[in-house]
Amino acid sequence: VRRPNSESPAERTDEDEFALVEYLRERFAGPPALAPGDLGIGDDAAAVTPAHPGPVLLATDLVVEGVHVDRAVSSPEDIGWKALMVAVSDLAAMGADASHALLSVAAPPGFPVARLADGVAEAAAACGCTVVGGDLSGSPVLVVSVTAVGSAPGDAPLLRRDGARPGDVLVVTGPLGRSAAGMRLLGGPSTPGTGGEDPVPPELATAHRRPVARLAEGRAARRVGAEASDVGLELTVGEDAVAAGATRDEALGGGEDYELVLATGDPDALAAAFAAAGLRPPIRIGTCTDHPGAFTLDGGPLPQEGWRHRF
Amino acid sequence: VRRPNSESPAERTDEDEFALVEYLRERFAGPPALAPGDLGIGDDAAAVTPAHPGPVLLATDLVVEGVHVDRAVSSPEDIGWKALMVAVSDLAAMGADASHALLSVAAPPGFPVARLADGVAEAAAACGCTVVGGDLSGSPVLVVSVTAVGSAPGDAPLLRRDGARPGDVLVVTGPLGRSAAGMRLLGGPSTPGTGGEDPVPPELATAHRRPVARLAEGRAARRVGAEASDVGLELTVGEDAVAAGATRDEALGGGEDYELVLATGDPDALAAAFAAAGLRPPIRIGTCTDHPGAFTLDGGPLPQEGWRHRF
Repeated sequence: VRRPNSESPAERTDEDEFALVEYLRERFAGPPALAPGDLGIGDDAAAVTPAHPGPVLLATDLVVEGVHVDRAVSSPEDIGWKALMVAVSDLAAMGADASHALLSVAAPPGFPVARLADGVAEAAAACGCTVVGGDLSGSPVLVVSVTAVGSAPGDAPLLRRDGARPGDVLVVTGPLGRSAAGMRLLGGPSTPGTGGEDPVPPELATAHRRPVARLAEGRAARRVGAEASDVGLELTVGEDAVAAGATRDEALGGGEDYELVLATGDPDALAAAFAAAGLRPPIRIGTCTDHPGAFTLDGGPLPQEGWRHRF
Repeated sequence: VRRPNSESPAERTDEDEFALVEYLRERFAGPPALAPGDLGIGDDAAAVTPAHPGPVLLATDLVVEGVHVDRAVSSPEDIGWKALMVAVSDLAAMGADASHALLSVAAPPGFPVARLADGVAEAAAACGCTVVGGDLSGSPVLVVSVTAVGSAPGDAPLLRRDGARPGDVLVVTGPLGRSAAGMRLLGGPSTPGTGGEDPVPPELATAHRRPVARLAEGRAARRVGAEASDVGLELTVGEDAVAAGATRDEALGGGEDYELVLATGDPDALAAAFAAAGLRPPIRIGTCTDHPGAFTLDGGPLPQEGWRHRF
């Protein structure tokens, strides 16, 4: 597949756009390939068969330049990767799989959409999902919209935000703050153009540029009946929940780690399920209370950052 | 449902955003209501059951201020209506219904997102579909992304772009150019602030501001085996295909009418199916040839405008 010259600073022509759509069609052909009879890019709408019977899971996320990503820190491929993973992460949080995705890109003239699509395709392959359609437009600023489509294996109920009970133990699937720390270090003055050794720990840089949706963790949590949480929370975030290289503020307020926060009445069963699935042990960060909306941290008030309202 | 004060020119606060999400949750509660057991706004992902068994139909469209809509001509409600209808129109073009939708809005500070959502909700109710999720972000320019989710009733194959055969008659489901003529007249110097009688024919203004997806036409066409077209086309666009008040150039190049273009080997059967469904008669605009990609208009070359590449 030859990539169209989408880095030209000139306004994109109709011919360029036709070449780009052809590139996307081939780039998103798989793997994974579509099921026989399903329709991907090329018709007015896609027609797909999710992997599992039952309800269709849908989640959509925006990635906006200057709000969610900084082109000085993330390459076009990184931005594409992240846009796909953020949407898939919402399915992971329900304990579901992603099977298909739609990608829309509103981009300024000359923005290398094909390179962004390469990152989307890499992330989709990593998640086992296929990009089956989308839309392109010009725009003064880069806005990427990804819709992830999936389904849930087995009969266990989906992980719900309203399922946690007072007394449940709250855990997180990995140490927090890696993305925020990575952004801080990547954006620091010593990084660009030094030609020398990159001072940013690769794990932090990767956590920021290429976050990974916790699909296996969501599946394991769903099998043992954990829940996402919408009750009151007494947080006691210990050192084990703060990523190496991240500050405590970054861990509490960074918000872009895409680790799952889970509530469970049986943390030992959850830990056993994670171990059986070859996953890192969940990290305890607090307890659910019977005061919905009331959050404390080490007994005091919680900082406001990082609490993103979604609908 | 009290609408949050989203027209404030100041930067939106966390509290504003919480109120907005609450407003959206109530505004999109239906009708139509979700099926029992389905999950709409409030969890990380939606879980929905499409209306009909078989493949899940997916389409997504971007509406970008300054590219697809002009706020001097379209209200926030109009923009929301159009964003929903454009995505649903892609399902109509396959002969499918829309049952659910996702709405993402990247908006500048002070943009009345709640009013845009009102238009989305009106359009969704008109299409029989429910908004089950979405995302919100700040952005220097308004970008609206809607994903429509649906399914197709009955066993007839989906309308495909590659299904047309040479010799098929090409029809369109309504006269063309209404949206372009409406935009021209609404944007004209005599319109804003005159206080007098609106000089724009209401049908043209409505066609531009509130286009309607041709769902019933798509269903009827699918039942009789019409097809969308990807073969060569010999167009002979007569006066009956040009909307009253629109120029021929607007009919040929306007591109935002959302009328369906259908190819059929049996135009009489198609006309009979439309009549039986209470729809306007399809309008002949040409014939399919065996020269893929070759388009002629009245024997000559076709103007380039209005051919939008999608993937």
